[in-house]
Formats: sequence, C-alpha cells, structure tokens
Amino acid sequence: MSNVYDSANELEKAIQESEEFKDLKTAYDKVMEDPNSKQMFDNFRNTQLELQQKQMQGMEITEEEVEKAKQVVELVQQHEDISKLMEQEQRVNALVNDISRIITKPLEELYGAQQ
Amino acid sequence: MSNVYDSANELEKAIQESEEFKDLKTAYDKVMEDPNSKQMFDNFRNTQLELQQKQMQGMEITEEEVEKAKQVVELVQQHEDISKLMEQEQRVNALVNDISRIITKPLEELYGAQQ
Ligand SMILES: [Ca+2]
Ligand SMILES: [Ca+2]
Repeated sequence: MSNVYDSANELEKAIQESEEFKDLKTAYDKVMEDPNSKQMFDNFRNTQLELQQKQMQGMEITEEEVEKAKQVVELVQQHEDISKLMEQEQRVNALVNDISRIITKPLEELYGAQQ
Repeated sequence: MSNVYDSANELEKAIQESEEFKDLKTAYDKVMEDPNSKQMFDNFRNTQLELQQKQMQGMEITEEEVEKAKQVVELVQQHEDISKLMEQEQRVNALVNDISRIITKPLEELYGAQQ
C-alpha cells in the first residue's frame, strides 16, 4: 500500500536512471555540443512541429511542404549523431508508451468493462 | 535503483488503491447500475466525444451543436449521481495530470535546458 505520489517519484527516478534515458541524454548532448549538428536537428524539429500544428488545426499541407519535410528527414538520417539520437528517442518513446499503458490500466478496466 | 517496469507496476497498484480511484469506481458503478442514469451519462459522453472529434478534425461546430451540448451538460449537472461521478472524474484527472508531470520531468529537463 504505497502512496501515489511516492510511487510516481520513485518511477521518475527509475526513468532517470534507466539505460534508455541515459543513452538518450548522451546522444542528445553530443548533438547539442556541435553547432552544425544542433542547427540541423533544430531545423528538423521545427519542420516537424510546423507540420504537426497545421495538421492539428486542420490546415492543408502542400505537396511542397511534404517534399521539404522528406528532404529534411533524409538529411538528418544521413547524419550519424542525429540518427543515433532519433533512435534513442524512439527507445525512450517506447518505454514511455509502455509506462503509460501500465498506469492507465485501472481507468481502462473501469471504463471498458461496461461497454 | 529500481527497475522502470517494477516502479510502473507499483504506481499502477497505488492508483488502484488510492482514495481518488476508489471513490471514482463507487460513483461510476452507482451510475451504471441505474438504466436511466446510465443512458443519460452515455448520451452526455457521446455528445462530448462527437464535438471533440469534430474539433480535432478542424470541422466547424454549429451554434445548434454548442447549444445542444450545453443543455446536455446542464441536464447531467442536475443529476446527483452523475454530477458526483463527474466530480470524481475531475479528481482522478487531476491526479493523473500530477503523475504525468512528475514522470515526464527527466525528458522535460533534458529538452528544456538547451533552449
Ligand atoms: Ca466498469
Ligand atoms: Ca538539455
């Protein structure tokens, strides 16, 4: 019988100490330490965010924009440090999704059973 | 130094055993046990979901729909068991938001520091 906040803080520490998170931090710091890598990564991030926001607002995305986004992705995929960072981000995302699935189980079971 | 999955499972148990979650379950079961309450609640839920989906797809929401949604909300607010359930839902939502803020701290600190 542990307190929710104690357990959440425990989990936060476990995430921080996990191999997945440590590897992400290493990959992230490496990209951020090199001005060229950092700029390329920021550019990639901004392009993704812009498209996401447009999508969420129901705005049309032009063929030109799709093409530009593809080029930016191809560019960063060829950059060793950035592609390593993106790989680590995917690992951490998978971990976060797993965690989210585990801790929302009580609510899912409650709201799911009656339907 | 605990494992992420062990900690997540621990947190899930803590949520399940929390006063917030138990009270929600009690309120939810009470509404579901009464066919009239259940139908009113389902109707309310469906109206909310429809509007949310339209909003997410960038579709226009008519004045008529806004009016109808307001009426459904007013109706359920006057229903003692349903308004009790909605109150408990808000408490659990606040708890889940707190948890989410705690466990995403490592990622926020990593991605926030450089900006
Ligand atoms: Ca149920
Ligand atoms: Ca940082």
